[in-house]
Amino acid sequence: MFHMAPKFVRPHIRQMEGYTPGEQPSAGERVVKLNTNENPFPPSDRVMRAIREIEPEMLRRYPNPTADVFRNKAAKLLGIEKNMILTGNGSDDILTIAARSFIGAGGTLAYPEPTYSLYPILAQLADAKTVTVEWAGDWALPIEALVATKADAIFLANPNAPSGTFVPPSEVAKLAEEFNGLLLIDEAYADFAEANCLSLVLKYPNVMVTRSFSKAYSLAGLRFGYAVAQPAVIHEMMKVKDSYNCDAISACAAVAAMEDQEYAARSWNHIKGERARLTEELRQLGWSVLPSQANFILATCPGGRGRETYLGLKQQGILVRFFDKPGLTDKIRITIGTSQENNALLGGIKGLSATDKAA
Amino acid sequence: MFHMAPKFVRPHIRQMEGYTPGEQPSAGERVVKLNTNENPFPPSDRVMRAIREIEPEMLRRYPNPTADVFRNKAAKLLGIEKNMILTGNGSDDILTIAARSFIGAGGTLAYPEPTYSLYPILAQLADAKTVTVEWAGDWALPIEALVATKADAIFLANPNAPSGTFVPPSEVAKLAEEFNGLLLIDEAYADFAEANCLSLVLKYPNVMVTRSFSKAYSLAGLRFGYAVAQPAVIHEMMKVKDSYNCDAISACAAVAAMEDQEYAARSWNHIKGERARLTEELRQLGWSVLPSQANFILATCPGGRGRETYLGLKQQGILVRFFDKPGLTDKIRITIGTSQENNALLGGIKGLSATDKAA
Repeated sequence: MFHMAPKFVRPHIRQMEGYTPGEQPSAGERVVKLNTNENPFPPSDRVMRAIREIEPEMLRRYPNPTADVFRNKAAKLLGIEKNMILTGNGSDDILTIAARSFIGAGGTLAYPEPTYSLYPILAQLADAKTVTVEWAGDWALPIEALVATKADAIFLANPNAPSGTFVPPSEVAKLAEEFNGLLLIDEAYADFAEANCLSLVLKYPNVMVTRSFSKAYSLAGLRFGYAVAQPAVIHEMMKVKDSYNCDAISACAAVAAMEDQEYAARSWNHIKGERARLTEELRQLGWSVLPSQANFILATCPGGRGRETYLGLKQQGILVRFFDKPGLTDKIRITIGTSQENNALLGGIKGLSATDKAA
Repeated sequence: MFHMAPKFVRPHIRQMEGYTPGEQPSAGERVVKLNTNENPFPPSDRVMRAIREIEPEMLRRYPNPTADVFRNKAAKLLGIEKNMILTGNGSDDILTIAARSFIGAGGTLAYPEPTYSLYPILAQLADAKTVTVEWAGDWALPIEALVATKADAIFLANPNAPSGTFVPPSEVAKLAEEFNGLLLIDEAYADFAEANCLSLVLKYPNVMVTRSFSKAYSLAGLRFGYAVAQPAVIHEMMKVKDSYNCDAISACAAVAAMEDQEYAARSWNHIKGERARLTEELRQLGWSVLPSQANFILATCPGGRGRETYLGLKQQGILVRFFDKPGLTDKIRITIGTSQENNALLGGIKGLSATDKAA
């Protein structure tokens, strides 16, 4: 729908498009949904129990402004101080708070491209510039080029989306060392990777790591995430967040999820196993698949027809993600599902090739 | 705790203090809590049932980005179009989105003072100026003075906090007519008042009304609120909000709360009745009490010792709110509680006077 933007809206907001979330089929629709990187397994029973046991009094009163029950639990599990943790209404909330804390109007946000398509939106909302740097060969971190941007902040998704590729912490450390601004490492997918950058936070005052419960703990609908950084950084971000940015239920459910590490780890192991299998099978079908450390893979279609493949699968009730962006039009991003879902995807892809041959 | 603010934090954030939420005693503490304007009654049973019936699948998947189930329900109840509604993670989220949409760095936010102490914080976060205008006599709307600020936006809490006073919609309409910027009417307490400004939204493209579930529906812990404005305004704010700013549980619980109007209205009626009784009894004790249309009253202590009264009540396990601000130091703000809580407060106050006389 077209609207004339009212003149009292800030000009840079009138001019922008806004972020487009991935397609969400309605509740009743029967689709194999491998397009938005949700965990294919339900949340832990402990989470569901914690939610069922929410007391009316917890809802009647304002929640603890800093979700301290969660911060105490996470601090213990991660072996850090509680005042190094900031909780958010999803890690998107954390990214927004970070953009507002570190990037001003006319400032600069830098990141290697392609990456999470929310980052340029956050820069636009801050009325700031975006400087994108191409990934080096084999999706390696372009350290010197990023430092040369002299940006106020660098956002680095690691593992990266939509590539699934991973930059070793030793490389990220080099960037942290040479860069003077805030380096935010978006670890939304870290639980599916072989390592993470948490320890860099202790060494570098300009490093922040963000985490999400959406993927690793099957809680995308709950909206809970957190940031880890040195206390002086967290202290400043506390001023920027909404007073009660995390509700009483989500904080409680996140604690229950974190307490059931065994359950979560089983889903991570399954996903890693299926990721290896899907990669292998697609390669045998002539696809080129990037080595992934996330819960999705970025795969290049034989013949390079990303959009046609996406649409062909959609016709069969299989949703994957297609990005109409330079360097990505010959690819689709596939979320790792259950074994059955992944088999359905492979079947759908084989069906497409058969149609191709018949045509 | 003192921290050296890192140099990569934006200067205006380093310099600010941040918002201080009201005191929240820990779960086990036995206090009569009349300090943060929560509803004294628990949420509707329907809300608790909706939460107990949350399915794992609702949490595993991303929520609907615009909480459409709620928007459909609210649109029907309010008799407006769905695209005139924006939902938020509490009405604080809505206020933040509004500040980011309408007030830029170097811009101006105006409001009559005293009012909700979050407003200047939102202006500071936007690196904007604040122009405060004193309320006219008897807490009337200072229309000309507000228009003369030529601000980018005016925020008007109506009923106002901490005074509880109410500006009739006809007066607000005059302001909307003469003012060119965005006029946000914060109706967090509107359900306790005799009227509201919702109809102004249809007439004036620069008017927005915000609502909260914290007080009227006993859901402060849930974080849910919404804005009503013309579609072109809502369209712009949609770009600014986080993609999934409302979680699946809160949207669902808010629908259940809104469906039980009868239950909510009972609590509003009780609160209005107790508000009249408390006002009357305090006046008989020599207090001066402003006529309130909110779920709290602002009362001037005999002798003008606001802080001493606050501390004296606190010693008796009764929490009220004291504001150390010009024009408020001789007053305390008392949230209307259950009949028993209000009796405890009256008893506590009588106890204080007795001590005074004995001394």
